[in-house]
Amino acid sequence: MPSEAKLRELRARLLEICDLGWAGAALSWDQATYMPAGGAPARARQIALLGRLEHERLTDPALGRLLDALAPYAEEHEDEDARLIAVARRDFDKAIKVSASYVKRANALGAASYSAWRIARPEDDFASMRPYLEQSLELTREYVEFFAPYRHMIDPLIDDVDQGLTCADIHALFDELRRELVPLVDVICNRPPADDRCLHGEFAQRSQLEFGLKVATDFGYDLERGRLDTTPHPFCTKFSDADVRITTRTYANELSQSLFSILHETGHALYEQGIAPELSGTPLGKGTSVGVHESQSRLWENVVGRSRNFWQHYYPKLQQDFPQLGKTPPESFYRAINMVARSPIRTDADEVTYNLHIILRFDLEIDLLEGRLAVKDLPEAWRARYQSDLAITPPDDRDGCLQDVHWYSGGYSGGYSGGVGGAFHSYAIGNILAAQFYAAALRAHPDIPNEIRAGEFTTLRNWLTQNLYRHGRKLKPAEIVARATGEPMTIKPYMAYLRSKYGELYRL
Amino acid sequence: MPSEAKLRELRARLLEICDLGWAGAALSWDQATYMPAGGAPARARQIALLGRLEHERLTDPALGRLLDALAPYAEEHEDEDARLIAVARRDFDKAIKVSASYVKRANALGAASYSAWRIARPEDDFASMRPYLEQSLELTREYVEFFAPYRHMIDPLIDDVDQGLTCADIHALFDELRRELVPLVDVICNRPPADDRCLHGEFAQRSQLEFGLKVATDFGYDLERGRLDTTPHPFCTKFSDADVRITTRTYANELSQSLFSILHETGHALYEQGIAPELSGTPLGKGTSVGVHESQSRLWENVVGRSRNFWQHYYPKLQQDFPQLGKTPPESFYRAINMVARSPIRTDADEVTYNLHIILRFDLEIDLLEGRLAVKDLPEAWRARYQSDLAITPPDDRDGCLQDVHWYSGGYSGGYSGGVGGAFHSYAIGNILAAQFYAAALRAHPDIPNEIRAGEFTTLRNWLTQNLYRHGRKLKPAEIVARATGEPMTIKPYMAYLRSKYGELYRL
Repeated sequence: MPSEAKLRELRARLLEICDLGWAGAALSWDQATYMPAGGAPARARQIALLGRLEHERLTDPALGRLLDALAPYAEEHEDEDARLIAVARRDFDKAIKVSASYVKRANALGAASYSAWRIARPEDDFASMRPYLEQSLELTREYVEFFAPYRHMIDPLIDDVDQGLTCADIHALFDELRRELVPLVDVICNRPPADDRCLHGEFAQRSQLEFGLKVATDFGYDLERGRLDTTPHPFCTKFSDADVRITTRTYANELSQSLFSILHETGHALYEQGIAPELSGTPLGKGTSVGVHESQSRLWENVVGRSRNFWQHYYPKLQQDFPQLGKTPPESFYRAINMVARSPIRTDADEVTYNLHIILRFDLEIDLLEGRLAVKDLPEAWRARYQSDLAITPPDDRDGCLQDVHWYSGGYSGGYSGGVGGAFHSYAIGNILAAQFYAAALRAHPDIPNEIRAGEFTTLRNWLTQNLYRHGRKLKPAEIVARATGEPMTIKPYMAYLRSKYGELYRL
Repeated sequence: MPSEAKLRELRARLLEICDLGWAGAALSWDQATYMPAGGAPARARQIALLGRLEHERLTDPALGRLLDALAPYAEEHEDEDARLIAVARRDFDKAIKVSASYVKRANALGAASYSAWRIARPEDDFASMRPYLEQSLELTREYVEFFAPYRHMIDPLIDDVDQGLTCADIHALFDELRRELVPLVDVICNRPPADDRCLHGEFAQRSQLEFGLKVATDFGYDLERGRLDTTPHPFCTKFSDADVRITTRTYANELSQSLFSILHETGHALYEQGIAPELSGTPLGKGTSVGVHESQSRLWENVVGRSRNFWQHYYPKLQQDFPQLGKTPPESFYRAINMVARSPIRTDADEVTYNLHIILRFDLEIDLLEGRLAVKDLPEAWRARYQSDLAITPPDDRDGCLQDVHWYSGGYSGGYSGGVGGAFHSYAIGNILAAQFYAAALRAHPDIPNEIRAGEFTTLRNWLTQNLYRHGRKLKPAEIVARATGEPMTIKPYMAYLRSKYGELYRL
């Protein structure tokens, strides 16, 4: 078979893998949005079936043989097909290393652990989660052995989500970040606190959705290829390059959470909608890594959406839609949505403290994986780190080490979906890269802040599309960062951004 | 392998076939309800993929060998497993007879023909549909050859949807029905016509949906296992025994169409929700035939939903929700929703004229299939039959022989979904059986009309569940009819129903 025919077969196989994943995603979306309660058991079975069929195709020895036959092509060329072969090879090699028995046990533990956590967390019952977490750690240790040898046991987990990064890289990055953040948080929290009462009250939920969707479409979210629905937990999902949907959750008594979650998910959606259409249906047709994906949600949510320039344009419109804000000056609103406070909850954290929540989780994961920290001692270690890094003690485990689902969603089974290790660090990388990409965009187009002040985002979005979105996985994360920003990942733009924005806000 | 293990394997295989079908149905539902326009091409591909995977499993030779091995069990037993084996055998035998090449060509023609019809109908352009219809007839003739020998070439098509019925049966039934209906329509249409102006005006669409859904749940539609959405064409669909959804279309300027379409789809949904849960995930876990299914939509829509007893309870509530009806007396409303009129459009037809629309379509299908009527002469034959049976001439082909999608949705590919032949007769059977089932329920529970007058439907629904719904396909259509009503299908209860209701309404 000539290369052309082999490439056609490869693309056909990869498209079928994509389509099975996308079909499963559509069933999951329905489960989260409109499915009646009774539909749950059959739906879980149907999603699992599609997952199994996808996995069978992803690990099909015939796919391996095809990739073997195409290896010379990939070596001799530097075109898109060569990249496609390389990335497909990587996915195939990783997939076949994990035993079917492992996947089955990990999924089973995942379901059981998640159900238990849904009961244990509100009851502040860490003891009942201990055996699940212990089993999850055991499974994770089993998982990383599939990828031996490795330098650190968390490296294979990191590689699943942020190709090219290692434990050592992240440690170096986080150590530096922590050294800068702890004193910055200290000094900010010694200033008079901001007042966010204007965000509390009664806010029509339909108006919240309409306002959020208006901003999302102004950002460039294409509703011909997307839509917004409401779910208990916001997410962005994709059923093809031309159907990328987002969800949010509205609160009748709080204005900002739903809005910023829409902007966050819009960032993810802009990335997926911006990938070059010719990559669709292949492993190249998605975001290059979880960290880079998070950089886009954070960029649009925070760097743009919580900026003074942005609200100069949108605040009068917000006041129109929510007349109760009529007496709140723009500056008070701006301070409210950027209030810095030491809180025990990661998801409530502001831009300045957020990464401290992440860093301590990453360190605790390492300690758990290495066996230096026993699961039974996790609550105590958690409290100690919150005290040392954030100078607060969580009131209980509910809002302590039980707060995030990630560690309790089971046996690690690859990717973003949970387990211990590889689950949190990408959020911090997202924050760091958001600032780094934005700074690079500004260097190229110094007029971007003025455009944002006019409710115009085309230049920024186009720069991101050209330098980041359109490439999908054709470029590795480090290539994307280096090409787009001219240097490797660095915390400097991020710290400069924080110091500038919060220095002004808190008159440091 | 002992029978127990074989039966377990059979059930596992059949469940996977069901789940693939249901997953595809969920994707189709999303396509009709919420999918953004851009999602269409990938969605069509994903639905086709799931259909192909389902078909591969349905025709898997290993399934055939398993059924062979289980054949002795089915012969020696009379239990549910024996029924399951028999029905699975029937489905398998039918599926393997049709060549993959045929299915591919039929689907391709279906897509092309449907797209062409969407343009040709509004343009009243029958000429452009002629080649599609000719090809469709050719394909249908090819299809029936897979099932040779047969007595009449439409018999295999009928068998796909209404097992046990033949062309001869339906001809006999329809001849009798036509002899009774033509003079009845004549005499009614010579009476002063009813006035349905009260149904026209401005009616809040949300209120229409709420009222319809209230009635649906009063009927017994379980929203823990279902939901109502809006789509251009109403339908009922199913993703498991515990997720049976309906849709409707509302009109801002007409009150009755959306309401009765909700009641119609609710009838289908009650049937599916009423099937014994232990049959779910097997070929027994669905309605026994299209004709019997239609009897349930018609029973709840017409026999119950257009009855005087029903509106005695609901009309005051309808007036509350739609105050513009305040001055319309109950009797005027009742006459409006049961207005008999000769109209060219099947879907607008009342209970009395409706079957005449069906009978003439069935006769024309036979003529087309037998080659006695050329496609080019169809418009003329259509007009002649509308003149002779309904004493009207359609104004054009748009509202003549182009009005229904069925003949233009392609190559016949089994079942309900279109093509020439086997597409229309089930609607008439539904009308006939609705009256026959209802009469039997009344004999068993003479109090049912009083309950309906009180907005109570439990006795009727329970009788239908016991005698019809719960059996799924465990009993054949003729067995269901005979056991539930004590006699074979007959038009007598239907004609008695029409004569009684419309005799009173039109003072005959």
